[in-house]
Amino acid sequence: MLALPSPCYAETRKMWHQQEIRLPGVARGFHLITERVEAALPELARCRVGLLHLQLQHTSASLTLNENADPDVRHDLDAFLRRLVPGDLPYFRHVLEGPDDMPAHVIASLLGTQLTLAVRDGRLALGTWQGLWLGEHRDHGGPRRLIATLQGEG
Amino acid sequence: MLALPSPCYAETRKMWHQQEIRLPGVARGFHLITERVEAALPELARCRVGLLHLQLQHTSASLTLNENADPDVRHDLDAFLRRLVPGDLPYFRHVLEGPDDMPAHVIASLLGTQLTLAVRDGRLALGTWQGLWLGEHRDHGGPRRLIATLQGEG
Amino acid sequence: MLALPSPCYAETRKMWHQQEIRLPGVARGFHLITERVEAALPELARCRVGLLHLQLQHTSASLTLNENADPDVRHDLDAFLRRLVPGDLPYFRHVLEGPDDMPAHVIASLLGTQLTLAVRDGRLALGTWQGLWLGEHRDHGGPRRLIATLQGEG
Repeated sequence: MLALPSPCYAETRKMWHQQEIRLPGVARGFHLITERVEAALPELARCRVGLLHLQLQHTSASLTLNENADPDVRHDLDAFLRRLVPGDLPYFRHVLEGPDDMPAHVIASLLGTQLTLAVRDGRLALGTWQGLWLGEHRDHGGPRRLIATLQGEG
Repeated sequence: MLALPSPCYAETRKMWHQQEIRLPGVARGFHLITERVEAALPELARCRVGLLHLQLQHTSASLTLNENADPDVRHDLDAFLRRLVPGDLPYFRHVLEGPDDMPAHVIASLLGTQLTLAVRDGRLALGTWQGLWLGEHRDHGGPRRLIATLQGEG
Repeated sequence: MLALPSPCYAETRKMWHQQEIRLPGVARGFHLITERVEAALPELARCRVGLLHLQLQHTSASLTLNENADPDVRHDLDAFLRRLVPGDLPYFRHVLEGPDDMPAHVIASLLGTQLTLAVRDGRLALGTWQGLWLGEHRDHGGPRRLIATLQGEG
């Protein structure tokens, strides 16, 4: 009978999982998607310690961590960004796709389109007030896709 | 006697390590925390090549990489952000927690609350002038916690 | 004869690869570097599912994902940022390195100097319109270096 050394056995529990997650179209602004993303990833439950990487496949939306409670925080960040990056700046050249397009590209780079999140004991290791936000920065952005890559040990 | 194949042995040196790091309360502004984070992670020394992921558990502070030498750079970024996101914007609705709160949420999303850092030969693979900064964006933010997740091969 | 359990064998295909990539000096503004980075990493082709982490070794340039087609988008983001962070703000103290230096530090933190990208079937798992951009925020930044860390399973 062969007893494999325990370090090697431990290695057998390492995991990589990658999938696409589709998000339905939403209004311009910020939307809490923590529960939706967790529900799409039952593999999370098997991960004792790890990391979840999320990457939007778009350049006019964003992903960010921010407050998960008061919806006014989501309103205020959107209101701030609409004023910070208006659609009618006279030096904008990329205007053929409408006045909401170039501001959406700017905000996508300011906030980012990919995030890595800590995983612990089968769940996202978020702070009490942290939630995952999708920023939709087009007026009619339509459905959005992201690639979720989960790695860790079970 | 059993000789395990070397690739399997190699796998035994893969590592995952996750822990919480507590940072004492600091004044509003940016603070160099490179040495503090490295000192909290003796496991770094065993990691030949890897990645360190850091995630604040808060939504009114930030993590960023920037200059590690002249403290004026930290002053200037804070000064810029205070003017970019003042506390008395008339359209802000989330105002019950004080005029420093909603700006702190905005800045947390602009700069980000999580970072991944390259690890090489037991140390953070930072450029000569790169340091890890904690951004405290509340007037009295108090102690801050972050989750550090280190993975790599030793 | 010893048959190793298949999960252990599977582990033998896990990979870590880390290297420096040197980028030649470019003009101030944004530059598409997707192909250059992929070409510098032939190891990508062996990675079925994984993550590529990129970290600039500098504090006055940036990395971001944004549109890979119309160069006007790159112009417009640069034009926006030059106006958002002018070089002659009266409260800037870090001015000895020239009027383009402190704005470059600000923009490096707004956009970020590190990114993690999903890898699938030997290539970056980018959306149709996504490209990797280098932001050069100095007037004469010179060559730039980044640390690429690739991990995954083959």
